[in-house]
Formats: sequence, structure tokens, C-alpha cells
Amino acid sequence: MAIDRPDVRGREAILKVHIKGVKIGPDVDLGKVAALTPGFVGADLANLINEAALLSARRNKNSVDMSEFQDAIDRIIGGLEKKNRMMNEKEKRIVAYHESGHALVAMSVPTADPVNKVSIIPRGIAALGYTQQLPTEDRYLMTREELLDRLCVLLGGRVAEEIIFKDISTGAQNDLQRATDIARSMVTEYGMSEKLGLVTYTREKRPLFLDTGIAPSKEYSEETAQEIDAEVSRLMEESHERVRRILTEKRGQLELISQTLLEKETILGDELKALLAGEAAEGKDSSTVSG
Amino acid sequence: MAIDRPDVRGREAILKVHIKGVKIGPDVDLGKVAALTPGFVGADLANLINEAALLSARRNKNSVDMSEFQDAIDRIIGGLEKKNRMMNEKEKRIVAYHESGHALVAMSVPTADPVNKVSIIPRGIAALGYTQQLPTEDRYLMTREELLDRLCVLLGGRVAEEIIFKDISTGAQNDLQRATDIARSMVTEYGMSEKLGLVTYTREKRPLFLDTGIAPSKEYSEETAQEIDAEVSRLMEESHERVRRILTEKRGQLELISQTLLEKETILGDELKALLAGEAAEGKDSSTVSG
Amino acid sequence: MAIDRPDVRGREAILKVHIKGVKIGPDVDLGKVAALTPGFVGADLANLINEAALLSARRNKNSVDMSEFQDAIDRIIGGLEKKNRMMNEKEKRIVAYHESGHALVAMSVPTADPVNKVSIIPRGIAALGYTQQLPTEDRYLMTREELLDRLCVLLGGRVAEEIIFKDISTGAQNDLQRATDIARSMVTEYGMSEKLGLVTYTREKRPLFLDTGIAPSKEYSEETAQEIDAEVSRLMEESHERVRRILTEKRGQLELISQTLLEKETILGDELKALLAGEAAEGKDSSTVSG
Amino acid sequence: MAIDRPDVRGREAILKVHIKGVKIGPDVDLGKVAALTPGFVGADLANLINEAALLSARRNKNSVDMSEFQDAIDRIIGGLEKKNRMMNEKEKRIVAYHESGHALVAMSVPTADPVNKVSIIPRGIAALGYTQQLPTEDRYLMTREELLDRLCVLLGGRVAEEIIFKDISTGAQNDLQRATDIARSMVTEYGMSEKLGLVTYTREKRPLFLDTGIAPSKEYSEETAQEIDAEVSRLMEESHERVRRILTEKRGQLELISQTLLEKETILGDELKALLAGEAAEGKDSSTVSG
Amino acid sequence: MAIDRPDVRGREAILKVHIKGVKIGPDVDLGKVAALTPGFVGADLANLINEAALLSARRNKNSVDMSEFQDAIDRIIGGLEKKNRMMNEKEKRIVAYHESGHALVAMSVPTADPVNKVSIIPRGIAALGYTQQLPTEDRYLMTREELLDRLCVLLGGRVAEEIIFKDISTGAQNDLQRATDIARSMVTEYGMSEKLGLVTYTREKRPLFLDTGIAPSKEYSEETAQEIDAEVSRLMEESHERVRRILTEKRGQLELISQTLLEKETILGDELKALLAGEAAEGKDSSTVSG
Amino acid sequence: MAIDRPDVRGREAILKVHIKGVKIGPDVDLGKVAALTPGFVGADLANLINEAALLSARRNKNSVDMSEFQDAIDRIIGGLEKKNRMMNEKEKRIVAYHESGHALVAMSVPTADPVNKVSIIPRGIAALGYTQQLPTEDRYLMTREELLDRLCVLLGGRVAEEIIFKDISTGAQNDLQRATDIARSMVTEYGMSEKLGLVTYTREKRPLFLDTGIAPSKEYSEETAQEIDAEVSRLMEESHERVRRILTEKRGQLELISQTLLEKETILGDELKALLAGEAAEGKDSSTVSG
Repeated sequence: MAIDRPDVRGREAILKVHIKGVKIGPDVDLGKVAALTPGFVGADLANLINEAALLSARRNKNSVDMSEFQDAIDRIIGGLEKKNRMMNEKEKRIVAYHESGHALVAMSVPTADPVNKVSIIPRGIAALGYTQQLPTEDRYLMTREELLDRLCVLLGGRVAEEIIFKDISTGAQNDLQRATDIARSMVTEYGMSEKLGLVTYTREKRPLFLDTGIAPSKEYSEETAQEIDAEVSRLMEESHERVRRILTEKRGQLELISQTLLEKETILGDELKALLAGEAAEGKDSSTVSG
Repeated sequence: MAIDRPDVRGREAILKVHIKGVKIGPDVDLGKVAALTPGFVGADLANLINEAALLSARRNKNSVDMSEFQDAIDRIIGGLEKKNRMMNEKEKRIVAYHESGHALVAMSVPTADPVNKVSIIPRGIAALGYTQQLPTEDRYLMTREELLDRLCVLLGGRVAEEIIFKDISTGAQNDLQRATDIARSMVTEYGMSEKLGLVTYTREKRPLFLDTGIAPSKEYSEETAQEIDAEVSRLMEESHERVRRILTEKRGQLELISQTLLEKETILGDELKALLAGEAAEGKDSSTVSG
Repeated sequence: MAIDRPDVRGREAILKVHIKGVKIGPDVDLGKVAALTPGFVGADLANLINEAALLSARRNKNSVDMSEFQDAIDRIIGGLEKKNRMMNEKEKRIVAYHESGHALVAMSVPTADPVNKVSIIPRGIAALGYTQQLPTEDRYLMTREELLDRLCVLLGGRVAEEIIFKDISTGAQNDLQRATDIARSMVTEYGMSEKLGLVTYTREKRPLFLDTGIAPSKEYSEETAQEIDAEVSRLMEESHERVRRILTEKRGQLELISQTLLEKETILGDELKALLAGEAAEGKDSSTVSG
Repeated sequence: MAIDRPDVRGREAILKVHIKGVKIGPDVDLGKVAALTPGFVGADLANLINEAALLSARRNKNSVDMSEFQDAIDRIIGGLEKKNRMMNEKEKRIVAYHESGHALVAMSVPTADPVNKVSIIPRGIAALGYTQQLPTEDRYLMTREELLDRLCVLLGGRVAEEIIFKDISTGAQNDLQRATDIARSMVTEYGMSEKLGLVTYTREKRPLFLDTGIAPSKEYSEETAQEIDAEVSRLMEESHERVRRILTEKRGQLELISQTLLEKETILGDELKALLAGEAAEGKDSSTVSG
Repeated sequence: MAIDRPDVRGREAILKVHIKGVKIGPDVDLGKVAALTPGFVGADLANLINEAALLSARRNKNSVDMSEFQDAIDRIIGGLEKKNRMMNEKEKRIVAYHESGHALVAMSVPTADPVNKVSIIPRGIAALGYTQQLPTEDRYLMTREELLDRLCVLLGGRVAEEIIFKDISTGAQNDLQRATDIARSMVTEYGMSEKLGLVTYTREKRPLFLDTGIAPSKEYSEETAQEIDAEVSRLMEESHERVRRILTEKRGQLELISQTLLEKETILGDELKALLAGEAAEGKDSSTVSG
Repeated sequence: MAIDRPDVRGREAILKVHIKGVKIGPDVDLGKVAALTPGFVGADLANLINEAALLSARRNKNSVDMSEFQDAIDRIIGGLEKKNRMMNEKEKRIVAYHESGHALVAMSVPTADPVNKVSIIPRGIAALGYTQQLPTEDRYLMTREELLDRLCVLLGGRVAEEIIFKDISTGAQNDLQRATDIARSMVTEYGMSEKLGLVTYTREKRPLFLDTGIAPSKEYSEETAQEIDAEVSRLMEESHERVRRILTEKRGQLELISQTLLEKETILGDELKALLAGEAAEGKDSSTVSG
């Protein structure tokens, strides 16, 4: 139930970080490992290295070679296939509406990247479904508006559950954490909260090589911490409200995408547009909704 | 006095975590160790590795081999048998009512997994009895309702003690900790508290490989910490009240299960249903009680 | 001036913890070391290992062998004998009344284990006297009432000093710390405070193998910390009051036990009962006093 | 989008810090590495060492030799060229106005060093553009006025975005952090806040050799922390206001520099003066604006 | 300006603690080192080991042998002799009155050990003078009254300075720290504050072997911390007042002892008694003053 | 811009501290290194060791030998000469008035050591000028009055800048930190604040050998921390006011010393006295000003 997964370069970069301290064999090419693991997120890649190292230890080898990486990848992907067979019907429905929520919000806010694929086939380790947005280009800057739109796309899954099931699930955990991270960065790093102004309250970033894993103590006062929390909450609440408005207005489209997903499991971007165009021809809730 | 123990795969995963830093011999298969330790929880498995390492050190070996694991398992299980012989009558009664409380709540809330076995035979190291619920399927998502029901099952043991003995024991410690964990996760990770909203306040999860065992400092303010505490308390109190209502209404069934347990030591799921059906034929408190 | 010392199994377990990181010889059997150190508490055993390691270093050995353990034990016990010869009369009187306080409270509260021996002969390193209660059986559960009774027995020594000398001594330090630990656990781990409810506020227990010796940061708010402190204080004050009431009522018995101790240095359980029975035949304050 | 990059000596000094713990070959001359990396900032150099070490590991070498440094430099610079080709038009416009804001403020405050070059060609890893001020001399002291002017130059980029786009971007993150550092140092280290007086509240500076990477705990009270935060905020807000005033008054010049930058990508100091002189001949907003 | 220095056994124990991690030669006998360093306090002994290790390193030895300890002792004692020659007259007067204050309070409070020697000859590294009380016996318990009297003796030096010079010096630093430690222990460890009651608020004592040098985080609330501070302050203030009263009443004796000290440099216990007896024959302020 | 630099013995002691963990060759004599580095402060010496170690690493040596120390010293002193040539006129004027402020306050407060030399020639790494006071004797005690006078001398440089330039510079950073340290020690270690009384609030001093570089957590409450901050601020403000009064009254002398310094770069103590005597013959502001 995640969006915005790292591409092959991103995966290689993540592998480089996690491989530190692990002795790897001369035949290991992290770029190739990255190529073999589409859909894996950071935690999946860390787990992969973990598994490969355990296999190597069990085989009494001095280093982790490509064969261990290959076997660990097979093992993890095998687990995923099993996972998919074993989700129950209720869970599949939740996943379908959740992903549809992501996709529909992505199509409704002005600056989101186009949706390339929505799927309820598990990917990576943690994701039970995914919404893939096609970045038409690498981005080097994000404006305030773009960050807020991205935050709303992240909340789309949870809000769809709220509206449809009147109950909510643990499936949004990662989405909520990433949305909170965006909101917190806007307030403490990017100077995007009028209340807090241009002052930054970031923890000092140390280069990776020197990272000791010990969190530096907060430099700011408790009062400032309260203001930061209040601003982060405000950003999250306003976005929550905005996403609720979008998905309530477009509930018909939400149902349509979800039902189609439950039938086909995967919808490509063009199919999605066609689907909504057909629906829109009959209704009127397909317009873009700005915050 | 615990419910929800890890299965063989879970035990293997836990062993992998705790084995880090321990040099094991080439004949050690953690999967096999997991198979030999049904009923062990995380702390039991950590203790097992501990014991095996001590044995290996005493034998002047350079690695911990399968023979040490085997001996350590025997030793621990021997201790358990002794423990069971030595519990006094009062303790056995407390354990019986405690487990009956778990089982009866599990049968009374709408979403709990069916009870497979209730027993007052010690299992693992820490548990003096156990209530085994049969997961009819692996679960990948939990809804808010399901989490609250699970929390209530965990409180069932303590509340049974309250009602029957007017005194309470230390036996609920692990249950209370796990219930608190669920409540706290609902508030800080799953966005399931209306008061706190969708903001997450989790500590950053690091992948296992990088885990340094040092807790990152809290990122949020004292005021937020108070709101989190208040919400966690509210969830716990409401569940406490709900479980009290369930067990007070069904006190007859609670007595019946407990007495049967004291006689037979173990009751299987079907026997339990039959027992309550018989009782229900005579009374009227067997209906499912929702929160 | 301590009660409730670890038995031989407990001592072996404690030795296992403290021996980590110390290279011991193949002839060292921690079970035997435990058998040679009756009356030693945790700190004594840590000190013992410390002494043995220093001896080994001084002898230029690569490991700490059984001979070092033996010599270190002799040395420590020699120190104790000297200590006993050197206590002054005032100190001996304080110790006698202190131990009598423990013993008399143990005989007065409903759930305390029977007193097996009271002595003003030093034992272990830190204790100037001791009151030994005979656990008639191993205990796997403690009820709220039992914990409070145990807490009162711990306070018995200090309160006897208060009543008799109108001055108080440092001798109760360990008792007070252990009583505080019980009260704090009741409030934060066992859900035994109505004010705090069933929520647990324990620090995460890590298995020994992974213990890094670094305290995790508090997870709860300052307001909660204040409530915990207040509840712990309340439990301690109520128990203080109760013990005061017991010992004031039975002051005659307190004097009798203390005088006998100063004469005989050690009183066995049966002698103690006979002593009080004789006294009771003449007075009327021997009834059990409940909280 | 950064100003004030380290010169070749500064880069060598930074390399020395980050190389600690890395085994380098006898042919590595950090001075030469510094010479090969113009425009790299601290994080870039840390990353460079990281990359070189990874290359060395992949090549199974025991040390990181000059060839790895050379290849890592090529790789990073290659990435930069690609980055420049891939920025979209909107991003390029933001970068152009951002750099123009830095440059125009630098030309408007009394004590700033003269602008030597403004460019929207990426430099180092993190910077999408840069404004280079020519330090006509090394500085050993900075007065309060000079620090405030430098702070304003740092804010110039963000404020230009505010004025032109009504939206703001993440591109100012590093600028804001450095401006906050200046403001915080003025208050806590240089005794330049009347409110806080001459008292310093710095963390103890340890020499690099002893640096353990663990932040010392704050020595001052929460109340003092609040006063520090308030003073830092005040300095930042007043500077924000001042920069806003400067760039609003000189909006014509801001547009002119930005348009020229979008055409030519780089403007040298003399060209910049000529450009504004031409504009000034037609308007009247070229006067220096003091705070 | 210190009282209560460790005896030879105490010094050996301290050496054992500080020697950890230092490789010493087979000829080193810490008991002998302790015998060679009368008057050294803990910091002096740590410094001694430090010096010896540096000498060993300079001599390219693999271990610190007895010759290095001998040389380091000579060096330190040489420094002390030089120090004594170099104190100026004003400093000598301050030291004389300071030590006289300690001695006179020790002779005035009911439970203090008798004064054996007062001296203004430096001893150890840090002490410019000393007051030696003769412990007529080892003590295993201290009552509340005894602790308060000891605290007052520690404050005697500073208060004498206050009364005589109307200015105060840094010479009381160690006395004040030790007095504060006593007051804090009374409140947090010995249950001797009525306000805080019998609850202990000590940090967990870890055995030396496991000591990681990392302070465990406070377990109690800020409110409790305030109450502890207030009680410690109260104990210190009341003792300050009491000592002021004693020394003001006995100012004649204070002058007499100080003048004698400046003449003779050292006064033995019997001489001191004779001195005051002579004075008392003429005045009336020699009575013991209780708190 | 510093006063009170370590002498050759002090430099050797500092070198000993920083050399820990660095493998030095048999020909290295830290006493000789100390003799070669007059004017170096602690940070300079740490930097020197750093440089020498880097040179050794570059030369592929296993230890840092005397030749590296020699080269590192030359390199650092070379940098200083260059620094002096490169200070601009404004900076030189600031330094001149700053040092004159130190010197004039030192000559105006009753207990300060006589000024031996004032100079605007850089010394050590960090100092752009220096005021050398001749300690006519080693001091073992400092009274409250002496500490306050020393604090005022430290503030003299900054206050001179305030009065003359109406702007202030970063050059006082080290002075302010040391003045704050004195004020804080008076309040928390020397019992010299009436408000805080005789209680000490120092962090536990560990002997150097055991120093782990980890700051122990504060033992006192937030309220106490506020009182400490307030007292430190009060001492600093009162001293600030006093120094302002001194230098305002003697502004003529301040100008005279500064102008002379700008001409001659260095003024010896006798020349300084003669200079002011000449001036005093014509005016009347040369009297000592007490606080």
C-alpha cells in the first residue's frame, strides 16, 4: 500500500548504505542486485542483505557472494507470492479501495505525477498493493504546493478506507509516517510554516561515513517543540480535510476503480483514464480539485 | 498466561535476530531449533541462545554447536516440568481463571480468532498457562475494530482475576504490556485516535542490520506526549470496562471453564464450545458481546 | 540488614550475568562457586568476580581459574569476620532492633513466609544482620496483597529504628530501595494502581544478550511521571503507617526479640515462636495485623 | 543554490576530517584531490570518499588509492552534467530567480563581499546554482553588522522566490540552515543579543581528535532555551523583513538578472555591474539598502 | 583543605578501580603503592596511575612497572613540596582559618570523631591543608544525627573564611561537594527527609564490572526533582546556619587555633585540647553545641 | 584576543591529554614540544597533534615522530605569519582597542595580576592579539573578589569594542566563554551565590583515565537550572556594567594605549605604566576602580 518506490538507481544507492560492514564477494555487483529487485523499498533491501548474509553464514563462507543474493531474492519473492494467495477477501477489498484512493487523489490534485499503474498484487515485502506514479522527469526542487499535493496523495489510501468501510486499518501506517515526514520537513527544514518562519530546527545532518547512529539532542526549547507539533498537526488536518472532500465528491469514481481492481488486479494509466472518462461522460465529478 | 505465541516460522525469525554476534557451528540449523521449541516466546528463545552459549563456553568450544542447543532445550524444558509440579493450589486456581478469562473474551468479541486450546500446563519459560487461538488464515491488515478486540482478549485474564478473587496478581504483566503496546501503536503509528489525528509519532524504525540498540530521542513535545498518554489511557480504560461487562454477564461460563480446566488441565476448542453450549442450554449469557 | 537473599540457583544465575566478558578457566564451575557463597547477594557476587579477576591478573594468568575464585571467597569471608568483631555496641543494638523489626512484621502480616532465622551475624558483604524467611514453596505469582505484605516486611527494620531510637540510620538503604522497586513495579508494570489503570509504563525489557547497558529514554510524559511518583509515594506512605501501627502495638515483643538477639546473636524460627508465645501468655499483642 | 563554498585549502581540511578511519594508499594526496574538486561542499567531499571506498571494496583492494578517487570524481561530475540536462524549465526559472536574489542582496547590503559570479550551472552535488562572492581578503573578525548582512544574503534566494512565484521551494533548505546557524551563534556564542547579554551558551567544543560524535547535554534551563529560540526567531524575522524590502524595491533589477541568467547561464561580476548600471540609468532603485 | 582521607586499604581499593585497562608489570603490588601514598585522595591516585602510564609509554615499555610508579610518586611529592614553598601569605592565612574551622566544628558537635591533627602542610595533590579526625573504630552504620554532624564539620572551613575575611575562596569546593553528596544521599537514598518519605530515588547502582560510564536516565518526575533539590537546600542551609552559630560563638578559639597553626604549621589532637583548655579557663565558649 | 595562556608546564599537561590514542615514536619528548610552542592554547595543541598525525600517515609511518611534530609546528607558525600580514586595517584597529580594553581593566581592578605585555601580533592559532599578565606567584586559592576581577578583565576587550565602534565583533567569543565559565563555577561549584547557597551542582568529575567523553545527565531540577542561569546572568551583567563604567571613565587612556599599540604593535608593562603616568599627569582618570 505504498506509492513512490525507488527506481533502480535509488535501490543501488540504498544497497550501498546497508551493505556497510558486510563483507561481500568479488562477484557481487550491487547495480545488478538493484536490477533484480523492482518494487523493493528500503526496508526490503535491508532485509535482503540480511537474508543473504544469513545464508552465507549457514554455508560457512567468508563473504556474501552473488549466489546468496540470488537465493535470498528468490526466497523473498516466493514469500510474496504465497502472501498474495493467502490474503482474505476482506483484506483484498481494503487494499483495492486503499489503492484506488491513492490513484484518485493523484489524478485530482494539480501537481501530482500521472498515475502509471495501480495494482493489488503485493510488491516488495511490506506492500500489499501499490500505486505507481510515472515521474516524467527527475525532480530537483519541490514547491510548497507540490509537497502538499504529494502529502494528499499519501493520505488518499487511508481516507478511502474511512469513507467506504467506516473502519480503518493498519495498512496506512507507512503512508502516514511519510506524510508526517513531509509535513515536519516543511515546518522545520524548508521554512514553509508562517508561524515558525524561516528558522530551521533540523538536527544536524552528518555525512553517512561518520554516522554513529546516535541521535543528537534537540537544540530547541519545549515551547518551540510544541509550536512545531501544532504546525505539523495543522498541515496534516487540512490535508486530511481536503482529501476527504475530494474522495467524497468522487465517490462514484472511487467505487469504479476499486471494483475494476478487484476484477483485474492491475489497471494501467491509460485504462484508468478511459475508465474515468467513461464514467465522467455519465456524471460530473472528474474535475481536478485543488487545495 | 500468554496468548498469541509465535509459530515455527516466527520462532526461526526471532532466533535469527538474537543469534547475531554469536558464533555458531556449521551443523546448526535455526529452522530445526525453531521446530524443537514449540510454545517458546521471544524471551525464551533469547534465553535458549544464552544458555547454549554458556554451555559452549564451559566446554571450551569455539562455536555453539547443535549439541549445545539440544542440551539447552532439554534443560529449559526440564525446568518447566519442575515448575508445573511446584505451583501451589492457589496459584493454579488463579491461572485457571486467568486463562478462562482470555478464552471467554475471545469467544465473546466479534472479530477474535476461534479458541483452539486453553491450558494450565506451563509452556515456554514465562507462561504458566496459555490460551491458543487458531488463526484460520495469516493476517496482513488489522482494522481498528480487530485491534480493540485483540486488546480485550489480552485484558480478559486480569479482569477474570479481579472479578473472582477481588485481588489481582503479577501474572498479567505480559498481557498488560502487550495491550498497552497495541493501544499506543493505534494512537502513534496507525492514526486511529481522533484526538491525535493522522500524524504519526513513531520512533524511526531502523532496519535490523543497522540497529544499534540506542533509543532515538523523542521528536515531539511534552504536550504531545501528554495527549498520547491520555489517549492510550482512554483506550485501555474503555476496553477494561468492556471486558468487565462481558465477564460479569458471563460469570457462570467463566466458573464453568475454570472448574473444567482445574480438572482436565487442557480444554480443546470443540470441547469448549460443547461445554458452553450445554451451559447455554440452561442459561442465557452466551451471546457475543460487542464493544 | 537484608531479607530475601538469592538461593544457590539464584546465585548461579547472577554469576552467569556478571561473568560475561571475563575469560574463565576450564575448571571453573559456576554452580560450585554459587554453592560456596551462601548469603551473598548480587553485589557481593559481582564483587567476588571482580576480586578473582584481579588476583588472576596479579598472577599473570590468562584466565580466571577456580583457585582464584576460592581465594577471593576466602578473602571476602575473612573481611566479614573482621567486620563483625569491629562493630561497636551502638551499631549492634541498631542491627538487633532492625532485624527484630523485619521479623516481627513478617510474623504479623497475613501472607508473609514464615521466619526461619533472625541473626545479627554479618552475611555476604553488605548485610550486617539478616532475617531469613523460609519460602515453603517457589512462587510463580504474587497477588497485590502479597506484594504489599512483602513491602511492609522490608520497611519493618527502619520503622523499628524510628520507634526505639528516635533516630534512624543508613542501614535501611537497601531495604528502602527494594521496597520502592516493589511499589514502582506495582504501579508501572502490574497495573495495580487504580489511578494509573492497566496501562504499563515499563521500559522495554531487552533480552540479556542484546543488553547494551544503555537506558532507553522514557516513553511517557512528564505528567504521567508525576502521577507515577505520587502513586509510588502513596503506597510507601500507607505501608509506612501500617508498619508503624504494627510495631507500636507490639513494642513489647520487639524489645523481647531484640534483647534475645543481642544475647544469642541468632534466633531460629521455632525459638522465635516459643519466645513470643511465652510473652503472649502474659500480654495480648500477638495477633496478626492486616493492612 | 548555495553561496560561500570552501576554497581548495578548505576542501583539503574537510577531506582530512572525513578520511579518518579510511585506509588510503601511499599515492593519495588529499591536496590534489582538493584541487580536482572545485565547487564541492563538505557533504560532496564526504560522498566522494564514500564512493571511492566503495570502488576500492568492489575491486578487492586493501586501500583506497588515487585511481579510485579519480574515478569517483569522474562519476560524480558525470552525474552533475546529467542533472543539469534534466532540470525542467520551471526548476530552471526558480533557480535563476533564487540566485539572482542572493546576488542582488549581496550588492545591496553595505558590508557584503563583491559578487564575482552568478550561475545556474550545478556545482558540487547539492547545488543547482551558485552565487560566488569574491572575498577580497581573508577575514579574521566579523562584526555584528557584517554577520547580519551575510545572513541577509543567505535569505536572498528564498525571498526572491516568495516575491516572484508566490510559492516557495525546497531549494532554500541549506541557505536557511546556515542563516539559522549564524543567528544562533550571534545569540549563544558571540554575546550579540541584548536580551541574553554576554553569557555564552555554547556546547563545549572538543578538538576534532577527541570528537566522539555524541552531543553533550544542554547545560542551560528550558527557560533560557526559550529565550534563545525567541532571539534567534527575532533576528531571522527582522532580516527576512529587510530582505523583502530590498528585493521588492529592486524588483526590476531582480527580473533583469534572472532573465539574463536564463539566457546566459552565468554572469560575471563586471557584467553584473554593467547590467545594473544600464538599468539604473533608466530607473532609480540601485542604491545600497542598509538594515 | 580536605578532611577524611582514605586509609591504606581505601587507597588500594581506589587504585584497583583506576588500574582497569592499564597493563601493569608482574612486580607491581598495588598494596605497596597504597602504602607509599599517604594523604593521597582518589583524584591523586588516578593522577598517579596516569603519570606512571605516561612514563612507561615514554620509555617504550609494554607494561607499567613498579619503577614507573615509584618515579611518578616522587615526581608528584616533589611538586607538593614546591607548592608549599610557593603559597603566599594571604593564602596561608586562609588555609589556617579554614582548617581551624573544620577542627573547631569537629570539637563542637556531639558525634564527630576526635581531631587527631590539624595541619597547613599540603597533602596529596589537591589539599593545601588538612584536618585529620581519628576514627576510633570502623563505622558500619551512620545515624541521621551523625550524618548532619559530619556535614557540619565539612562546612566548618568555608564558614570560618566567611566570618574572618568577609570574602570566601575556592578552597572549599571539595568540602561543599562532599557535604552536598551527604545531604543528597540523606534525601534520596536513606529516606531521611520527612517531605520525601521512605521512597528512594537513587540511580541504579551497577556493579563495577558492568559499569559502562553512561549515566542512566532519571526515573522520576521533574516535580520530584524539585522537591529533592528543595530538601537538599534546606539541609545545607540549616547546617550552614548551625555552623555559623558555633563559630561565631567560639570566635576567640577560632583565632587562637589559627594563629597557632600559622606559627607551628601542625597541631596534634592533645595540643589542641590543651590550647582550648587554656583558653577556656579564661573564657566560657568551649561547650559542645548541638544542632 | 586572549589572555591567560598556559605556560610551558601547562602546555605539556595539555599535550599529554590530547596525545592519548596516538602512537608516538620513542624520540618524542612532549616537554620539548611544549617548549617549542609558546603562545599555543589548548585548541592549538590539539590541532598540532592532529597535523603531526596526518603528516605521519601521509609518510606511511607507524608512529608520529619528532620530525612530524617539528614540521607541523613550522606549518602552523607559518600560517600565523601569513595571517598577520593579511589582517585588514579595520580588523587591526578592533584588535588594538580590544587588547587595550583587557589591559586597562587589568590595571584598574584591585586584585588583577600586573600587565606584562600587550600585543596585536597573533599568537597561537586562534588569538589575533594578547594581553599577558605576569603572575608574580602561582595561585592555589582564588577569593570571590579575585574571581570577579578576573571576569572583568576578560570582558574588557568586548566592552572596549562596544564603546569605541558602537559595533561588536566575534573576537570576544573565547573571552565570553571563559568569563561565563568563571561565573558558572562561582554559582555551581564554589558556593559563592547567596541565592543558591552552599549546595554544589557540579557534574561528577571523573578522573581522566576513565573519561568516556559522555556527559552525565543533569542531576538537578529544571527550576534549579533556571536559578543557576539567572545567577550566572546577574554576575555577568553586573560585571559588564562595572567594566563599562571603568572604560568610559578612562576612555582617554583607552585611546592612548590603542593608538600606541597600532604604532608599535607591542607594549611592555613598564612602557604601559609610563604611558599612562604621562597621561595621568595631564588628566585625572587613572585611579583604581573597584566593583
